[in-house]
Amino acid sequence: MRIEVTFTAAELGNLPASGRTAVVIDVLRATTTIVHALVNGARRVIPARTVEEAVAKRMELGRDAALLCGERDAQPIPGFDLGNSPVEFTRENVADHALIMTTTNGTPALLAAGASHIALIAAFVNVEAVAKRIVELDGDVLIACAGREGRFAMEDACCAGLLIHRVNVLRGRGVRTGDSGAAALALARAGTRDLPGTLRRTAAGRALRKLDRDADVAFCAQLNLHDVVPVFEQHRIELS
Amino acid sequence: MRIEVTFTAAELGNLPASGRTAVVIDVLRATTTIVHALVNGARRVIPARTVEEAVAKRMELGRDAALLCGERDAQPIPGFDLGNSPVEFTRENVADHALIMTTTNGTPALLAAGASHIALIAAFVNVEAVAKRIVELDGDVLIACAGREGRFAMEDACCAGLLIHRVNVLRGRGVRTGDSGAAALALARAGTRDLPGTLRRTAAGRALRKLDRDADVAFCAQLNLHDVVPVFEQHRIELS
Repeated sequence: MRIEVTFTAAELGNLPASGRTAVVIDVLRATTTIVHALVNGARRVIPARTVEEAVAKRMELGRDAALLCGERDAQPIPGFDLGNSPVEFTRENVADHALIMTTTNGTPALLAAGASHIALIAAFVNVEAVAKRIVELDGDVLIACAGREGRFAMEDACCAGLLIHRVNVLRGRGVRTGDSGAAALALARAGTRDLPGTLRRTAAGRALRKLDRDADVAFCAQLNLHDVVPVFEQHRIELS
Repeated sequence: MRIEVTFTAAELGNLPASGRTAVVIDVLRATTTIVHALVNGARRVIPARTVEEAVAKRMELGRDAALLCGERDAQPIPGFDLGNSPVEFTRENVADHALIMTTTNGTPALLAAGASHIALIAAFVNVEAVAKRIVELDGDVLIACAGREGRFAMEDACCAGLLIHRVNVLRGRGVRTGDSGAAALALARAGTRDLPGTLRRTAAGRALRKLDRDADVAFCAQLNLHDVVPVFEQHRIELS
């Protein structure tokens, strides 16, 4: 088994497309929010590249069936039902609804990775479940970190590294990886000792705290809160 | 003082241009080779994006004045005088010549970083000299890692991290940095304990060893072999 890691969506374009499984990680906050929303009864999450595309998709599905959610510059989008904070995605808010979601970093990574792969959705809140699934699938894997504003993001790299580490432990033997995978493993060793502290110190964590979203950062640092694996296939993300 | 790090040339495009000093790193092998060539008496190094551009530049300068050097897929280019192996750039081969150089990963990073900045050329062979220069300049810095084939390269990240570490030590107080800088520092802590071993295990190191270029990998792992700082300004790299 070989696990490749990319730290930005741009790097994905430099890897040959193939049949391997992709894993998309955007810890702060898109993939954490997607996992939590599906656990709380959302039927599915439909990624949309732009605000306009999100609005058009909702018109198709009907106002009662689907909620608009996402962010721009980490802020809620005017006229949308929900932002991108996982704590908003309560059972009361999302159960039995489809969610149309557009976010700055997570959505481009999802759409890029999902274009040629089946993509699993991972964050610290479900990393063990995704590791178990990877071991079951027993094929090559591409972990696509969303990054932040086209650049490396520490929290995504740490989560990728922890995922590889757990796959190694569960398989009982190491997977092959490249420079990014080796870097992710090393960063996870250092960064997961104090996960809430690590997340608070990242660029995305600091930006969220400036917006008084400390609770979001703490939420996203909860290790294995949920035992589920959302799967992105045929333009939608559902639990499988 | 703030030091930003980018791991790929694509990330550079996501940073605002500014007056800060850039540092370009392509440990295996372009920036190591440039440092070594200038120490051995090459008058200057002129980066060229393509083989065709390199040939055209040599026509301008004259066959006796300039040598063509570089690689494609880590292999010498047919008709060129030299490849990209630092051990070829002896005093006998390069003294008093201009070198026109085109390489797969180093040249694009150089040209991208040099477009809006004065760029210092760094590798493990001169990292302490570059750290001293950064401390003297006392302004913000952008460290542009070349990466490999558009992706993260461990050896460049380790060198960037060691450079930040040495700047911290020489200044006597920490510089500010972002997620990539923090990651580079962490990777340097782990990776520079056994630098030759670390370089051999990277993707670029393994590829060079497959081509029987083990000597190049060992050469590039020599810490502070040279006490010089090449500077890329006005389309040419010279010692300053």
